[in-house]
Amino acid sequence: MEKEVVLGLLGLGNIGGGVWDLIREFGAETAKRTGVRLRVKKALVLDKRIHGGKEVPDEVLTTDRSDILEDPEIQIVCEFLGGEQPAASMMLRALENGKSVVTANKMALSLHFDELRAMAKKTGAGLYYEASVGGAIPIINAIQSPLISNRIEQMMGIVNGTTNYILTRMAAEGAAYETVLKDAQRLGLAEPDPTADVEGYDAAYKLSILGSIGFHSRVKVENVYREGITKVTPEDIAFGREMGYVLKLLAIGKDNGEAIEARVHPAFLPADHPLARVDGSLNAVFLFGHSFRDMMLEGRGAGDRPTASAIVGDIIQAAQNAEHPMPYLREDPLPVADDWYSRYFLRMKAKDEPGVLAEVTGKMAKNGISVSAMMQKDADAEGKATLIFITHSASEKAVRRAVKSLNPEICRVENVIRVEDAVEA
Amino acid sequence: MEKEVVLGLLGLGNIGGGVWDLIREFGAETAKRTGVRLRVKKALVLDKRIHGGKEVPDEVLTTDRSDILEDPEIQIVCEFLGGEQPAASMMLRALENGKSVVTANKMALSLHFDELRAMAKKTGAGLYYEASVGGAIPIINAIQSPLISNRIEQMMGIVNGTTNYILTRMAAEGAAYETVLKDAQRLGLAEPDPTADVEGYDAAYKLSILGSIGFHSRVKVENVYREGITKVTPEDIAFGREMGYVLKLLAIGKDNGEAIEARVHPAFLPADHPLARVDGSLNAVFLFGHSFRDMMLEGRGAGDRPTASAIVGDIIQAAQNAEHPMPYLREDPLPVADDWYSRYFLRMKAKDEPGVLAEVTGKMAKNGISVSAMMQKDADAEGKATLIFITHSASEKAVRRAVKSLNPEICRVENVIRVEDAVEA
Repeated sequence: MEKEVVLGLLGLGNIGGGVWDLIREFGAETAKRTGVRLRVKKALVLDKRIHGGKEVPDEVLTTDRSDILEDPEIQIVCEFLGGEQPAASMMLRALENGKSVVTANKMALSLHFDELRAMAKKTGAGLYYEASVGGAIPIINAIQSPLISNRIEQMMGIVNGTTNYILTRMAAEGAAYETVLKDAQRLGLAEPDPTADVEGYDAAYKLSILGSIGFHSRVKVENVYREGITKVTPEDIAFGREMGYVLKLLAIGKDNGEAIEARVHPAFLPADHPLARVDGSLNAVFLFGHSFRDMMLEGRGAGDRPTASAIVGDIIQAAQNAEHPMPYLREDPLPVADDWYSRYFLRMKAKDEPGVLAEVTGKMAKNGISVSAMMQKDADAEGKATLIFITHSASEKAVRRAVKSLNPEICRVENVIRVEDAVEA
Repeated sequence: MEKEVVLGLLGLGNIGGGVWDLIREFGAETAKRTGVRLRVKKALVLDKRIHGGKEVPDEVLTTDRSDILEDPEIQIVCEFLGGEQPAASMMLRALENGKSVVTANKMALSLHFDELRAMAKKTGAGLYYEASVGGAIPIINAIQSPLISNRIEQMMGIVNGTTNYILTRMAAEGAAYETVLKDAQRLGLAEPDPTADVEGYDAAYKLSILGSIGFHSRVKVENVYREGITKVTPEDIAFGREMGYVLKLLAIGKDNGEAIEARVHPAFLPADHPLARVDGSLNAVFLFGHSFRDMMLEGRGAGDRPTASAIVGDIIQAAQNAEHPMPYLREDPLPVADDWYSRYFLRMKAKDEPGVLAEVTGKMAKNGISVSAMMQKDADAEGKATLIFITHSASEKAVRRAVKSLNPEICRVENVIRVEDAVEA
């Protein structure tokens, strides 16, 4: 016995169009499988004449949001507008009117998580956002349902396809960041203004969502340490490789028992780490839970069809669930850490003179940092040698202090990259 | 507001004990997160004096199955007995009495899938089996819920840890199958009678379950083509590696539009395939769906705690769901294919004489098989040369015909191993 569920779409661009297509082509089969027949009643567009070339009947299109938000027949509102506003207000209004919301919008969700969650709780409406992190990868669902009886100790994600594409090509070709970025822009794989991706904002929003649901403590995006890939050079990647590491932009969350570490930055991974060979525009999330141990979920993090797969999955759940699941947040939330332990890769340019190495290692020792591996490269034309250090586990603050204490005339730190080890399974 | 849910455990060995421990240690936290507090009322054991050293109160233990199956207070029955019977009858009885069933038993589930499903439908009880395939990996959930709006075209799994461990060590050490098997038995990683694992029965049961729910057509285990790893030699692995391939025991399901391919056999994968580096006792399932495209889920396929993670996840779902999901089977099920196309690796010993190569390639051409790569190794002491062929895509039946048509006096086929290509994403 099928039941009809009436949808309103906010936006009919790339993702909205993908959802429209998937429902049109595969809706009948989906209805057979689930008992839920989906009908799109209205789709909000800016201009009725432009709706992505999709064959959407004219009566479905509207430029008036209230045709969706205030129509009591519409049960589920799907938001594909992107950006913080008006997306967040519109989702809030839909929830207020008792409509369940399905969204792919990590920014609006991350920034308005508490409000949206509170409103959904109040009215009993559902809030679903599988597509907001990792595209088609069912990571939100996994954390909230099959893996719920676990203390998740670590999550480590490649959750931004643009930066992963850039780093993969830099590694393969030894090419400079700017060169590959331009190419990626030309191919439509990076935005004309790439800031949100390359500076790690996109990954930080996603980590804020994953961290909040996985650690049951709010991880606000402003508390996520964030560093992008713009300072990464082909030399860093090559030196790391010599030492057995692969460079990735990671979104890292750890529950250390006292605080939540939440940080987005380039990081070296051992070449045999499962995330190390996740290349190109793929996304993947590695999880470590106290009971399931190590796990990785990998797939398409973007693209209209993969994203539509996650969204329609959410719509079906919103339609089927008698009670909508709501992430549990601890009454005694853990704070987000402002310091953490990691290993570090330090690339320096130093005067090729006696005593310099002693000076550098002395400053490190003074800050409690011990060296695990070291590599020196011949001096360049200016008489500066390249020094590479990999440290043992050290505190972030101590490393920053040590770096600051070095006299740049004698030894200039060119880059500091964190090194993440594999967890013991 | 928490609700109490009363459980009966059938079995308290490795897995049952793991579930007991996880509920005891993490049940209070799980209740906070989900609103479901789990209470184990009874656990069926063979002998009350032996219950795995777990600190289970005496009044929980019973040797009488009816204390669980006939107790109206028990809402969910968890089956950890393993084997076909009496597990299947006991699950059937529980369902008949309206109790939801959670099981990790791929054998009983695969063999009695239709009966169990029909009984669950009849009484409205739930049937959950996330732990039956891939241990902690939420593959059943993913296929049935977040990925439901997809035509799954391909699934390819490393779903047996014992054989993956053996093949990984054979590859790393160049060791013979028998040597590594003995070692695995000594380490408790292979059973004293290893047949179920090494001959592919375990993987075939799992493929039967995955295939039935993923392709919505019953894939009975007796229709799964099955070939184990006992014939694999270190030479096969080494020759494959020279040609860029890694050997794995794969459970392969494909929907070719007209039939379901369902087969368990050793297969060569390109070294850059995501499954190729899933080593040791890890499990992983690669999926390709028409909308989500390529995806891989990887994790612990066995062990008491990872399995318990999946089981408790299922218990919570069984407790929360107002209506229990039931896999949809097509009214026009696709048959299981008795032929399929693949590429093939053929290792032969041939007389080192003129005309032999022409004879072999002639027989292949006659059966419509064309060669993609070929390698000849110097003749051994008996004057026999090793020939390795990798074919283009060819039908299984044609390859078998070609192999049969060769005169073993002139050219003996020592092994035939299928080669699986990556799908285009």
